[in-house]
Amino acid sequence: MAPRNGSESRSVGAVKPQTMRFDQPLAFKSGATLPAYDLVYETYGKLNAARSNAVLVCHALNAAHHVAGYYADQPDNVGWWDNMIGPGKPLDTERFFVVGVNNLGGCFGSTGPKSVNPASGKPWGSAFPVVTVEDWVNAQARLADRLGIQSFAAVMGGSLGAMQALQWTMSYPDRIRNSIVVAAAPKLSAQNIAFNEVARQAITTDPDFHGGDYYGHGVVPRRGLRLARMIGHITYLSDDAMMEKFGRALRSDQIGFHFDVDFEIESYLRHQGDKFSEYFDANTYLLITRALDYFDPAAAHGDDLSKALAAAKARLLVVSFTSDWRFAPPRSREIVKALLDNRLDVSYAEIDAPHGHDAFLLEDARYHALVRAWFDGIHAKL
Amino acid sequence: MAPRNGSESRSVGAVKPQTMRFDQPLAFKSGATLPAYDLVYETYGKLNAARSNAVLVCHALNAAHHVAGYYADQPDNVGWWDNMIGPGKPLDTERFFVVGVNNLGGCFGSTGPKSVNPASGKPWGSAFPVVTVEDWVNAQARLADRLGIQSFAAVMGGSLGAMQALQWTMSYPDRIRNSIVVAAAPKLSAQNIAFNEVARQAITTDPDFHGGDYYGHGVVPRRGLRLARMIGHITYLSDDAMMEKFGRALRSDQIGFHFDVDFEIESYLRHQGDKFSEYFDANTYLLITRALDYFDPAAAHGDDLSKALAAAKARLLVVSFTSDWRFAPPRSREIVKALLDNRLDVSYAEIDAPHGHDAFLLEDARYHALVRAWFDGIHAKL
Repeated sequence: MAPRNGSESRSVGAVKPQTMRFDQPLAFKSGATLPAYDLVYETYGKLNAARSNAVLVCHALNAAHHVAGYYADQPDNVGWWDNMIGPGKPLDTERFFVVGVNNLGGCFGSTGPKSVNPASGKPWGSAFPVVTVEDWVNAQARLADRLGIQSFAAVMGGSLGAMQALQWTMSYPDRIRNSIVVAAAPKLSAQNIAFNEVARQAITTDPDFHGGDYYGHGVVPRRGLRLARMIGHITYLSDDAMMEKFGRALRSDQIGFHFDVDFEIESYLRHQGDKFSEYFDANTYLLITRALDYFDPAAAHGDDLSKALAAAKARLLVVSFTSDWRFAPPRSREIVKALLDNRLDVSYAEIDAPHGHDAFLLEDARYHALVRAWFDGIHAKL
Repeated sequence: MAPRNGSESRSVGAVKPQTMRFDQPLAFKSGATLPAYDLVYETYGKLNAARSNAVLVCHALNAAHHVAGYYADQPDNVGWWDNMIGPGKPLDTERFFVVGVNNLGGCFGSTGPKSVNPASGKPWGSAFPVVTVEDWVNAQARLADRLGIQSFAAVMGGSLGAMQALQWTMSYPDRIRNSIVVAAAPKLSAQNIAFNEVARQAITTDPDFHGGDYYGHGVVPRRGLRLARMIGHITYLSDDAMMEKFGRALRSDQIGFHFDVDFEIESYLRHQGDKFSEYFDANTYLLITRALDYFDPAAAHGDDLSKALAAAKARLLVVSFTSDWRFAPPRSREIVKALLDNRLDVSYAEIDAPHGHDAFLLEDARYHALVRAWFDGIHAKL
């Protein structure tokens, strides 16, 4: 194995999304059926002759299939996990064939609420079925079928993406050899649900929401979506990281005695909310937060996560971050405990990082070294 | 001293709010001046002949002057700190003369945004000056003047109320002998400000806000106020307490695959938001959250809290709660450190309580015993 280090790592370069059309209906956990759908995806690296080196990377709330590289006509549009994935990077595209896919219900090209419902000729809107992590994983498995991938070398994700990586070990134990579960929880806490609920209420009570069928009204519930993003953003950062980055710094030299922006943190949150509300679909936000709320593999097994994972066979790497208060380390330890109960091959790392939940997206040397070593091990067995 | 125990404690009974009119202008920290104003207040117990047994109780965000007892025509309308204050209770109204006052900018009778601005003959609305903790304390001191109280035996409060109790030691060191500072912070963190900002944005972007002058439009920004309350409520409870109280319990026997209420926590938050938006004034919410943001006594002293407290003379009791993540124990310890730097007589207790920030309002045996003992000590010196 050739020596590798950070200085040799580089971007996968210009990439192109592709679209796969599925005409066979997909039954959702809710009982609803999606008659046909598109999945938008990207791939990096090459599938080897044995078709054994494929890695699926699952996205969380506001990301999608554009995981690494950039678009030729949008050089600044860099994939959301570009620091992790590329030639010489921890998930090395010179060794692995990496697949990123926009999940169903999304708003970046895969079939979702703003797609046209063939039954009505109008956007799905409120009629788009509520989708679950299990449904996403089923759709991802169909994409794998079409790509000729019988078994993934690994499925990897952070946050909601990690829930998909975990669900893979339960839904398709024979089609996943390794699972990398970063910054996850086995189910949301009441507080987690509470934050999602406030975000959803911000959207659904926006007068421009029109019951989810705003597309026909020429408006979007931008105010609600903006608030939802602001709330979410607070939960992604640790109190300490926010204090370190913004503190009580003012935008001008003194407080203004008004309700406009005084503090840098206010300006930052408004900016994040404004940006997000320009490109994200509100119905997708509702669907994705609901998928988070509903994820609870233990529920069907008498609240016993160990039983839920009884069929799992994959090797697992579970990673948490000390300052993550959204899905704090004890939540990852619940997963580890259930995996150990099943005598599965599991490694667990609690990374001492100050950035909160968002740490899973950041380039922390120890975290990246760990993932790199893990993939080295997978590669050695290919 | 007669023995007392919980079984002997009782309500102060039926109480009546009173209104004090002030015709002398009050200058605010912002530079604005309130030409005249009313303060609504309640008192319990009797001011002794030496006028030495008065205790001022300061309210936090959504409370007011109705601290203990009930109203004869509204027997269910019990004061917000009734478990703490009454005959035989930790703050014993058989020994102390207790004063509760609705702060300026409030919406429960004291002059605030919904009061009529004499200059225009219309509600103040957006023209009501931004008010600070210092301004509130100045107004409280004027009320004390009118009540013939030269010096308070104690000023007491939790959360924002505690900030007022602390400000008293700095603004009027010769008029306060004891300060009880519960669940406080010496200034808000970036995360604290962030939550306030999202709440304010929910209100000010509600189409019914009309720039703060909604009174003339026959509407109130109820949607925004409801969201603000929901957000706030999450921060008052600990993750553990929420999990204990609500968990992932469902309202019906199964999830509904919709965005209506599935989980008990959703129902609870919506109910809290609905209730609050029925009675609270949105402009008051803006003012009070801004007073929280702006409270930072160290700022005028080179960010040195010890210097800010250099003039303080009071004895202090500082109390924090282990599960309070809004104003966590380390925030109280910052205050204690600054008090000790000034060689002040300070006691600090960190109460192991699961309820989060709201613990300051709840009847925890150790917490109440501590406050009771503290007031016993004050009484012994009267």
